[in-house]
Amino acid sequence: MPGAPTLGVDLGGTNLRIAVVDVDGRVLGEERAPCPATGWRGIVDAIAALVETLRVAFPDVAALGVGVAALVDQGGNARYAPNIPGLIDAPLRAALADALGLPAVVDNDANAAAWGEACHGAARGVEHALVVTLGTGVGGGIIAGGRVYRGAHGFAAEIGHWPFERDGARCACGEPGHWEASASGPALGRRGREAAAAGAAPELLRRVGGDAGAITAPDVATAARAGDDDALAVIGAYATDVALGLAGLVNILDPELVVVSGGLVELGDLLLGPLRQAFVGHVEGAAYRPPVAIVPAVLGDLAGVIGAAALARDAVT
Amino acid sequence: MPGAPTLGVDLGGTNLRIAVVDVDGRVLGEERAPCPATGWRGIVDAIAALVETLRVAFPDVAALGVGVAALVDQGGNARYAPNIPGLIDAPLRAALADALGLPAVVDNDANAAAWGEACHGAARGVEHALVVTLGTGVGGGIIAGGRVYRGAHGFAAEIGHWPFERDGARCACGEPGHWEASASGPALGRRGREAAAAGAAPELLRRVGGDAGAITAPDVATAARAGDDDALAVIGAYATDVALGLAGLVNILDPELVVVSGGLVELGDLLLGPLRQAFVGHVEGAAYRPPVAIVPAVLGDLAGVIGAAALARDAVT
Repeated sequence: MPGAPTLGVDLGGTNLRIAVVDVDGRVLGEERAPCPATGWRGIVDAIAALVETLRVAFPDVAALGVGVAALVDQGGNARYAPNIPGLIDAPLRAALADALGLPAVVDNDANAAAWGEACHGAARGVEHALVVTLGTGVGGGIIAGGRVYRGAHGFAAEIGHWPFERDGARCACGEPGHWEASASGPALGRRGREAAAAGAAPELLRRVGGDAGAITAPDVATAARAGDDDALAVIGAYATDVALGLAGLVNILDPELVVVSGGLVELGDLLLGPLRQAFVGHVEGAAYRPPVAIVPAVLGDLAGVIGAAALARDAVT
Repeated sequence: MPGAPTLGVDLGGTNLRIAVVDVDGRVLGEERAPCPATGWRGIVDAIAALVETLRVAFPDVAALGVGVAALVDQGGNARYAPNIPGLIDAPLRAALADALGLPAVVDNDANAAAWGEACHGAARGVEHALVVTLGTGVGGGIIAGGRVYRGAHGFAAEIGHWPFERDGARCACGEPGHWEASASGPALGRRGREAAAAGAAPELLRRVGGDAGAITAPDVATAARAGDDDALAVIGAYATDVALGLAGLVNILDPELVVVSGGLVELGDLLLGPLRQAFVGHVEGAAYRPPVAIVPAVLGDLAGVIGAAALARDAVT
């Protein structure tokens, strides 16, 4: 059924979200539930239950796409998901297709979100784009030649996990000095705590009642929005690390566009301004190539379900 | 003429090398000259002169491919070549096709060498491979889906140029702490000098007549081959930095195979042994994915001409 809507699932460590999405990327209906902690069979059952609910109003959905916070292989098996209990070597694609009687695709959640921005968002019509998600961690998706770049096994685009600062802060994955440990939301909070503890952010310290150790990324953001120069300086230092990492990724991948998504992008130009400024000139041969624009994502936290639904649509058309 | 040989050019800062290569990757004839320092027209003339010489014995060559140490755009223009005087915004492809009356393609030299290894060398038959050249600098080529990954503008795979050590040694490109500055041949020499100056490599110091500042990468290699434990430790520390960087690139690109080429690979298992050992476990979710093999290149310094000739063959078949 060309033109029929498809289902998109965004499956993270905490929440399970599912939407009916039309060919123009519009969300027609949506259901949510907590992510079951009972292993992959419980997850399949939970998705199936939400699909049956949505099928009452949308009986013509043509396929199901899932974006999941996991390493997903080319067969749609979730091989490893550090934040979802029991999701190891889980045959999600096959089990969902069986349970629902629908064509199903399963991909990494960041790939799905990137594909959402590529099909219906900030990277629409762009053949080569890098989508970088700055949030609790740093994730991303690579669009190359108008498709999701998945690598040999489907595990590509783990773009937060490479050594950025040899003896830097430990990454959530356990490795020291990964870019994620400098470019994630928690890294912004850490910078705020360090600045306050060093006496370099008195207004920020005052805002949290004098306990430097209590400062979080949202505290830094709130202070920056209120015009606190110290908080702005903290964001500037953070933006420099993000920019240097982005320049490195641009040297490796040569996208024409970088899309920044995730919680940090809510800072808007408070982040994107210093980020763009710090980025310029760090790309190889910058004077001899077209500039790479850095733009904010536009789909917000709907990117995952919209992209997963688009992947499902691709699979049946 | 399917089956006709093609011409492959390897154009670096010092040497111009050109070979007639058959469909099986065998070099049938070869010419060399110094790389002219008279700008791109001089380079085109020099290539044309060598081609005319080779055409006497091989009149049926079907096309010409060039790999050049430059940022090369999708139209075969060399946009920027820091080590080749006058090679800025040079329309090499069009000028060579005009001068020779042959179909011509121009690509980055590391891309060409990677394509050589993919077509006729260590990555033959591999759909997704990363070819890393450890030499004066660190270069590379990305094979993705059985093709050279070029990115949006042809500038991809500048894989030496990303921040690896925040306040590390300055890269040849001017940026501080790029991986190239830790993983190149000169970085191995620098480690040897540092070890000798710190009194940690007395035998290495003796070999160079007591002048720690005179130690080069080949000195470290010679001492290691002779069994000097201190030199082996220097190589081990160097290999760890190479391995951590490779693991990061594998997290981003997800190849099934890493091919190591360049002058450093002549160290053989003295390098590859500690490199493989340091690499294991630093890839995300390593326990849940197929291991990535690290193998030496097999075409040596012929990879460039063989790969350039293969690119030319692809263009006419």
